[in-house]
Amino acid sequence: MNKIEHIGIAIKDMQQACRTYEKLLGTACYKTEPVESEGVSTAFFKVGQNKIELLASTREDSAIAKFLEKKGEGIHHIAFDVEDIYAEMERLRGEGFTLLNAEPKKGADNKLICFVHPKDSNGVLVELCQEIR
Amino acid sequence: MNKIEHIGIAIKDMQQACRTYEKLLGTACYKTEPVESEGVSTAFFKVGQNKIELLASTREDSAIAKFLEKKGEGIHHIAFDVEDIYAEMERLRGEGFTLLNAEPKKGADNKLICFVHPKDSNGVLVELCQEIR
Repeated sequence: MNKIEHIGIAIKDMQQACRTYEKLLGTACYKTEPVESEGVSTAFFKVGQNKIELLASTREDSAIAKFLEKKGEGIHHIAFDVEDIYAEMERLRGEGFTLLNAEPKKGADNKLICFVHPKDSNGVLVELCQEIR
Repeated sequence: MNKIEHIGIAIKDMQQACRTYEKLLGTACYKTEPVESEGVSTAFFKVGQNKIELLASTREDSAIAKFLEKKGEGIHHIAFDVEDIYAEMERLRGEGFTLLNAEPKKGADNKLICFVHPKDSNGVLVELCQEIR
C-alpha cells in the first residue's frame, strides 16, 4: 500500500459540510462527483498528497444512508492507494481478510476500488483503490 | 495543513491488532510508545508519508476506554500535520471551531497536539499535530 489515498466521511448536508471542511482544511473543494451506482454524492479536498472525501446519500437504501442512521455523521472508511488492486486483493485473501466485492468496481475519482470487511480490521472499513490507467 | 499525519484507531487487544495491521498493511509496526498522561499505549505503522496509530487503553477512565465502551473498535481520529500549531489553533478559533485544549499538549511520537471538537466537524475528531523541533 503506497499511502492513504483518502478518508471518507459520511455527512448529511453537503453544502454545510463543504463550508465546514473548507474552513477546517483551509482549502476549497476541488471536485464534486455523483456515484450513482452507490447512491452517493461526493466532494473532494486535497491535503498534501492525501484527500478528504465527503459522502452524502442520494438514495434511502444507500450504504451511507444506513451508516448515518446507525452511527450518525463521522469517518466512514480509510482508502489506501495500491499499485495493482488485483494483486493486493489476492494478497489480502491469502492473509484471511474478507473482501466485500469479489472483483474491483468503479468508484469515484477514476478509481478501481474494493472494500475489506471491517470485522477483519478491528472495526475499520478499509478501501483499496487503484487509479484507472 | 500539510498532510494527514496519521489515523488513530481504537483497539482492544494490542497484540492481536498489531498482527492484523501487519498483515493488512504489509509492513511491520516500527514503534510502540505509552502515553501515560492519556492512559494509552500506541503502535505505529508507516504507509508512504502517512501513519496508522493503534490506540489501546491502559486505564479504565481514559478517553479510549470510553470510546471503546460507547462505540466499539474503529477509527478514533484523523491527525493533520501542521507547520505551526499555535497559528493553526488561532486560525481555527477564528473560524468558530471549538478546541478541546486551550494550549498544545505533548502527544506520542514527539508531537505537540491539539484536538478539535467533533461537533464542529461533522462527527470527526480532528487532531492537529506539529513535530517538536
